[in-house]
Amino acid sequence: MQAVVVENGTVRVVSDWPCPEPGPDEALVRVRLAGICATDLEIVRGYSPLQGVLGHEFVGEIASAPDAGRVGQRVVGTINVGCGDCAVCLSQGPEHCPNRTALGISRDGIFAEYATLPLDNLLPVPDGLPDEAAVFVEPLAAALRIREQIAVRPSARVAVVGPGRLGLLVAQVLALAGTNVAVLGRRAASLALPQALGLETGLVSDAPDAAFDLVVETTGNAAGLQEALRLVRPLGTVVLKSTYAGAAAVDLTPLVVNEITVVGSRCGPFAPALRLLAAGQVQVEPLIDAVYPLSEALEALEHAARPGVRKVLLRP
Amino acid sequence: MQAVVVENGTVRVVSDWPCPEPGPDEALVRVRLAGICATDLEIVRGYSPLQGVLGHEFVGEIASAPDAGRVGQRVVGTINVGCGDCAVCLSQGPEHCPNRTALGISRDGIFAEYATLPLDNLLPVPDGLPDEAAVFVEPLAAALRIREQIAVRPSARVAVVGPGRLGLLVAQVLALAGTNVAVLGRRAASLALPQALGLETGLVSDAPDAAFDLVVETTGNAAGLQEALRLVRPLGTVVLKSTYAGAAAVDLTPLVVNEITVVGSRCGPFAPALRLLAAGQVQVEPLIDAVYPLSEALEALEHAARPGVRKVLLRP
Repeated sequence: MQAVVVENGTVRVVSDWPCPEPGPDEALVRVRLAGICATDLEIVRGYSPLQGVLGHEFVGEIASAPDAGRVGQRVVGTINVGCGDCAVCLSQGPEHCPNRTALGISRDGIFAEYATLPLDNLLPVPDGLPDEAAVFVEPLAAALRIREQIAVRPSARVAVVGPGRLGLLVAQVLALAGTNVAVLGRRAASLALPQALGLETGLVSDAPDAAFDLVVETTGNAAGLQEALRLVRPLGTVVLKSTYAGAAAVDLTPLVVNEITVVGSRCGPFAPALRLLAAGQVQVEPLIDAVYPLSEALEALEHAARPGVRKVLLRP
Repeated sequence: MQAVVVENGTVRVVSDWPCPEPGPDEALVRVRLAGICATDLEIVRGYSPLQGVLGHEFVGEIASAPDAGRVGQRVVGTINVGCGDCAVCLSQGPEHCPNRTALGISRDGIFAEYATLPLDNLLPVPDGLPDEAAVFVEPLAAALRIREQIAVRPSARVAVVGPGRLGLLVAQVLALAGTNVAVLGRRAASLALPQALGLETGLVSDAPDAAFDLVVETTGNAAGLQEALRLVRPLGTVVLKSTYAGAAAVDLTPLVVNEITVVGSRCGPFAPALRLLAAGQVQVEPLIDAVYPLSEALEALEHAARPGVRKVLLRP
């Protein structure tokens, strides 16, 4: 089958990758549509030792499964596969299982015609929700994770640093219950889309010190974190939503002097993300910049890495 | 009067510094004993633009005050002086007042024969508590601050990175309610004192990954923070108790991937710290390495900066 494969730090599209064989509790999924995210770009740059198929954001269709009743079902899939036996798995799920694998990060991913995942990881997509929206469920769940971790007060002053693919989902999620959210970017051009989505916007450089109760950092670079530490008020909270490749040089003095709390935040709950998508409460399709066939995945990855580009999709 | 003065990044002992004149709500305090802390050493290295008298840990005696009844009282003093009028001061006190000054950091400090502070900042020292214990109230309060910010569960696995002057206070404070606390250092020699204080100890390099629910970083260097992020379990908490001079190069990936919460922590409550000292529930006098006369403050600062040295005191 056709697949986007990373081997020894090199990414390429191959047409003779073996079709994966599902294990006893797994389903074989035909991938209908996939999304490229910052983690994929980091992996291509060598951030992770992945050897195999890239990609973890997708909507697909169950081609075969231990439960025959689910064959043909349109599904999305959570990316963490835990051992199922340890205290972490049993008490809180697979996200922090020490023996977990993660789709497209430490196990074969979904930039391919077919992929395998445990049947338990696959959630049905509501009828009427187009693939082009359902494919956003994974990053939308990651944005929702913030609301699982901290209370987002409706009266809080909230800023999202980074008007990118993740930042615009985070901002919409934080605004859902009446909170004022400002999306802050470095260039005015990057603020057109958040404005079109009805979000408040501003330039990071114009935002005053200590102006926000909660700041979410979605740029994944040290400069973004430094700005977040500047923008948050004393005793406020900064959420880090992106992984940082390598050592980030950050002046941590404000963190201590202003007694800031920094919360790392990763994967989130799919079921409420699907509910929000089905109800149209979060706008995702305006984030799509391009859809490429899987055979042009290298061009698509290059496109997704350009400044100002939000979501680039791959269709196998 | 004699005073230890920082001017244009140079520290010196002068004998003709003018005796400070207390403002309307202030007391004049005769300094009896003072402590050198890491912040003083950072200031001497140029970390802060202080111009004036260094030092903020002290026990003294009120020499003059608007309230004549307090003259002669032995006192310790909180270091933050707020404007008293802003929302921060009115709702939560002076520690985060945007217009605050801080003793020996942004206003004249107490490495001197006399100092001034608002009378409201001065708390009486219980009779029977020797100066050599009372002088630890400020760093002990800073250690207690952690318990104001987060719940320290009695069953939690807790580590303190850095067996130094602050780490040994933090460890004792965290152990007060039955919690197991391990003090981790880089060299075996640094663990003798915590062992003598009855604390569990270990080498940082021997401690396994993800072994602790709560890790307090007291070294103030990037390597200590990196170790803390390694030692804490997924979804655990790291408390930063020391300021970091300059940009710290830290790989923040574990913070995001393991969804760690990092809490900056600074000044704490004096009244409970005095209660703990008076009750003998925290051992501080074994931390004293040397007492110098104020005239030998430069030698004392040099002594305090040596590796493995805990508390060096100054007696005006």
